[in-house]
Order: sequence, then structure tokens, then C-alpha cells
Amino acid sequence: MDTGSYRNMEIKLKETKLRRFCENILIKVGLSQEDASIVSDHLIFANLRGIDSHGVVGFPLYLQRLVEGGTKIKPKIKKIKEKATWALLDGDNGMGQVVGVYATKLAIEKAKGEGISFIGVRGSSHYGVASYYTIKAAEANMIGFSMSNSRLAMAAWGGAKRVIGNNPLSIAVPCQEGKPIVLDIAMSKVAAGKVRLAARNKERIPKGWIIDRCGRDTENPGDLPEGGALLPFGEHKGYGLAIMVEVLTGVLTGAGMLGQIPLWFKEIRNPLNMGHCFAAIDIESFTDLQNFKKRLNWVIQEIKSSPLAEGARGVFIPGEIELEIEKRRRKEGIPLSEAIWQDFKKLSEIYKEPL
Amino acid sequence: MDTGSYRNMEIKLKETKLRRFCENILIKVGLSQEDASIVSDHLIFANLRGIDSHGVVGFPLYLQRLVEGGTKIKPKIKKIKEKATWALLDGDNGMGQVVGVYATKLAIEKAKGEGISFIGVRGSSHYGVASYYTIKAAEANMIGFSMSNSRLAMAAWGGAKRVIGNNPLSIAVPCQEGKPIVLDIAMSKVAAGKVRLAARNKERIPKGWIIDRCGRDTENPGDLPEGGALLPFGEHKGYGLAIMVEVLTGVLTGAGMLGQIPLWFKEIRNPLNMGHCFAAIDIESFTDLQNFKKRLNWVIQEIKSSPLAEGARGVFIPGEIELEIEKRRRKEGIPLSEAIWQDFKKLSEIYKEPL
Repeated sequence: MDTGSYRNMEIKLKETKLRRFCENILIKVGLSQEDASIVSDHLIFANLRGIDSHGVVGFPLYLQRLVEGGTKIKPKIKKIKEKATWALLDGDNGMGQVVGVYATKLAIEKAKGEGISFIGVRGSSHYGVASYYTIKAAEANMIGFSMSNSRLAMAAWGGAKRVIGNNPLSIAVPCQEGKPIVLDIAMSKVAAGKVRLAARNKERIPKGWIIDRCGRDTENPGDLPEGGALLPFGEHKGYGLAIMVEVLTGVLTGAGMLGQIPLWFKEIRNPLNMGHCFAAIDIESFTDLQNFKKRLNWVIQEIKSSPLAEGARGVFIPGEIELEIEKRRRKEGIPLSEAIWQDFKKLSEIYKEPL
Repeated sequence: MDTGSYRNMEIKLKETKLRRFCENILIKVGLSQEDASIVSDHLIFANLRGIDSHGVVGFPLYLQRLVEGGTKIKPKIKKIKEKATWALLDGDNGMGQVVGVYATKLAIEKAKGEGISFIGVRGSSHYGVASYYTIKAAEANMIGFSMSNSRLAMAAWGGAKRVIGNNPLSIAVPCQEGKPIVLDIAMSKVAAGKVRLAARNKERIPKGWIIDRCGRDTENPGDLPEGGALLPFGEHKGYGLAIMVEVLTGVLTGAGMLGQIPLWFKEIRNPLNMGHCFAAIDIESFTDLQNFKKRLNWVIQEIKSSPLAEGARGVFIPGEIELEIEKRRRKEGIPLSEAIWQDFKKLSEIYKEPL
């Protein structure tokens, strides 16, 4: 997760305006009203939560992929196999967000009747922020799970080049008060966007974030695009989790795996065949929902009542910081970098869509 | 995971001998043949895999808990709720290994028919090594999952005292050749056993392992028992995962949570009411098993063909190092520290069981 990626963000747009802008252009490109609404809602969600690396910054590229055919405008999502509690889907290389929401709805529907569900997906595209999907499950009073594989970005623990994606994982849980608690992590120590930002600002980065092309720990963010690699978080543990996410989303589903996945932002005419999985546990099947929420609330209070370590700003529950940002940005608007603003002005002209 | 915890291990016992010793004493204490066999097999498994912190070192304490009544000798494991793909169990505060194996078998049985399964457990005890259970699922050609909550051991990220357990998680996946790949991680940076060992050896520990009672990063391992706390691995990410494991194993199941769980090695008369969960995905339901294994094999080969980083001994797949240790120890025997050896000689006299 990449919070507050932009410096000098002086332009702020209201979420409603930004959402409508993206949605209308997607419709002009050929997406259905429903699909355009899903994709734009997803992008705005990312920006609202402060995960700017997965927000509207990707919109021009998403568009280009749709126009050039790498991503299908009107995918026919197919159920390859289906049972009461699980399914295997082929996303027909449509927008990852469209495929992801389809799979999430199916996971919720199946868990509602059966208690648990699991949906594997192949033939999908970059699906953005993993927590977008799990929060939907949590809003249906379920524990939601979501994972995706991704293009090569990260070294193995002990390795000297990119061999695996930083394969995100999200889990969300409904709470007694307000929004769910939400874990949303990639398996790299930091997002590539954070390294790119440091390079742009000509800053050094801490050791442990990346290695250079020779596998050496480096403080120079410029080493990443020159054949370097992100490092896994938590050493062998984050690396091991990345492999397990690859197994569940790639190996099991029949999707592309590791280096088989094209660089979505470069190979814009190639379908990505990415893999995801989604799962849900319907809390009410297992126990009384209010009692579950009361127990969870007690856990949250216990943890948050911890005395603070030196220099700590607080003890936060997963998703709490993103929720703070969301509240602020809903009021104050979504900050855009000058570069994105220029991109959007161009799109506004091309698609004759007022900004 | 805690590999190679012992120094000066000169005594080595063959696994068969050690297994029989534990099993016979457990039977003398009152366990059924089957349960005694499960528990001793589990302990020997831990030692064989090099996870000595969870091996026979705990045997005297496990015995004491059985004799004193904190752990039930003949638990009546109950299904509180059961559907085709999931169940909620009460372990009646029996041995965690006995309850864990019962739940694992149920998870495998249900997934075999339905494709997926989830078993929640409350009223259990310390269940030892999480991968003992997931490997059983992998041996049945399933992807196996297992988690447990545990006594307070770890600080929150940003916190200055213990507020949560280091809640282990294991995932195992069947492979084309030989043994499954096995992830088995606790959510702390290192196991408490490693810190205790450093204290015993009068060594300093690296920063980032623990904090002292004031929440300060410390290199003195002696600070841990004096009100210090383990730190989560991967900062907020390992901390967030620990919370999610607590939700799935504690909040959802009705087990004890956080500080409600007694110190199993101190409060030996108190039932622990710990919570676990187990899940399985039957690969053959989703796809052709041989094709799955071929695809996984390709992933393994791709990752292992990575050039090595400076100073790295190799790129290892999760569980590979443990498997190396297992092969060696099966041949050479299981090394025991002098302290454990003395404990075992005492047990040998008390229970009139030859060692």
C-alpha cells in the first residue's frame, strides 16, 4: 500500500466530479454503464483511501489498453466449473475490476447460503486494490479474502533478480461501529511507486527496500528500473507468502504465472491472463453476528489501549489510517499531481468530456 | 519457526526410540493409544524438522498439564455446528494436537466431497507446529491451511507492551516430486525461544527483534522476560496478519482471545480455551492434479533458478530447509540438549519407561 505518494499536490478534485469524468469516458470507449461505474468507483476508492498508486494515475493506461485491445471492452466472463460453494472463472481478459467485482458478488452469494465460498479466477487483468473486493464482503457481514498474482517485481529471499510478483492479499472483517477492519498488503517491503517517487525527488531510500541488478542492497532508487528488484517484506516470510498467493491465484486457476504475465503498462496489446482468488466466510452461519462484533470490538479496544512505543503516533488497527484519509478526502477532495492533471486535461479534450 | 535452537547438543536419539518413549508415557498417564500416538508423532515431527522449540522440549510440561487437569486426558470433542463444507468444534480442552488432527481429518473429508472446507475450533490447547496439520492435507492432495491464536507475546506495531499472540499460520501444497512445499510462520520477527537462547548464551540480539518494558528497541535478550515483547515481522504487515489470525481463530470460533488465554506453561491447572482454524482446497475438484503439479513444478524451478544475492546460501522454497534437516535427523537421530536429557531421565524413572 502506498499512502500519500504525491508531493506538491495542489489540485484537488471532488470525488463525484472525478468519478463522473472517468465513468463517462469509459462509456465513450464502449464499456457498459455498469462496468464503467465499477471501474471508476474502484479508482476513486483507491484515491480516497490514500492508495494513490492504484488510483486514477492508472486511468490513461487502462484506457489505452482498452482502445488497443489488450483488455476487452465487453468481456464474456465464463464459469468454467461451479459447485455450491466454489467456482472457477475465466475473465475473458476484461478489466480486472469488472472481473473482480463479478467474482466477489459470486463469493458473497455462495457464502450466504453455504457458510463459506471460494472463487478462483483466470484470464483477468490488473485488478487494482485488493481491499476494494474484501470490503464488499465485509459490508455483507462476511469475512472477505482476496489475492492476486502480478507481473515480476520482487526478488526471492536470497535471490538477485525479479522472479515473482509482489502478489497482494487483503482480508476485511465487519465491525461493530463504522467501517470494517481491513488488511491490504503486498508482499514487497514497499510499493514500487514509493521507490519511483524517491527517484523523482532525488532522495536516497533505506536499505532493505530494493536490490540492484547484481543483487546488492542499495539506497539508490534509480537502481530499481535498471534491473533491480523489490525485496520481500519480512524476509523469508513475505517471500513465502508471495509464493502461496501465486499458488492460489496462478497455479490453481490456470492463469499466467510469474514471468508469463506481461507488463500491463508496456505490453498494452497483450491480454494479461492474470489470476485472482476470492473467499468469504458468512459470520452468521457460524455464530451470532452481534456477538461476533462485540467480541471483535473488545479485541480492538484491548489492542488500541496499548501504551505507545517511543516515537509512535498511535496504535492503529488495519485500515484505520486509510479510513482517516478517506474521511478527509471525501470532504476536501482528491489531490492530483501536476502530471496526472495534465493527462486528464488531454483526455478531457480527446473525449470531449468536461473536467 | 526456530531452527537449531540448541547449542552443545551431544546426545542424539533415534526418532523411533524417542517416539515410543513419549507414546508409552502418555498411555501410562491415561491417553488412548491413538491420542498418545498423535501427540508423540507431532513432537517428533517438530524435532525432525528442526523446529526444536515445539518438539519434545515441551513434553514434561504437556505431561504436567495432563496430570494436573489443565488439559483433559480424554476430551469429548464436540461438533457445535456442522454443514457439508464447514464445522465449528469444541475441543473440550484436550491436547491441542489431538483436537488439531481431529479437525484436520474433518477438513480433508469435507473438502474431498465438496471441493473446499473450513473448520473452526475453540476449547483447544497449545497445538504445537502449525505445519503438522497442513502437511496432512497436502498429502491428501489438497492445499491445507492452519492457524492458531496464542498467549500474549507480541507488541502491536507502534505499541509498548504485549497485546497479542504471535499467532502462527501454515499453508502446505502438494508437489510433483517428494514432499509438499510448506509455509509455517509465526507473526513475530523471531520466536521467543531464540531470544531465550541468546540470553542463556549471554549474547546480544539484533535490533528489531524485541522491545523492553518501556517499548524501546533493545539488544538485550534479558529484557523480554522483564515485561518486554516480541516485535511483529514486517512491521505493520505481520502485526495486521496477527490480528486477522486472531479474528479467524478466536473471535469467530468463540475461543479465548488475547489476554484471556492463560500461560500454558505456568497456569497448568487452567484450561486454555485456545482457538484454531483449518481449511482445505481439494485440487482435483478444480483442475487436473498432474497438471497442477506440473505447473507448480515450473514455478519452483523458475524461482530456484534465480541468481543468488551476495552472501546467500541459496534460494529456498518454503519448507525446503526443514526438509533437509528432516532427512539428516532421520538418519543421524534427534539432538537433545543436556537439560532435556536430564528431564527425560527423570521421566524415565518416574514412569518406569526405559529410555
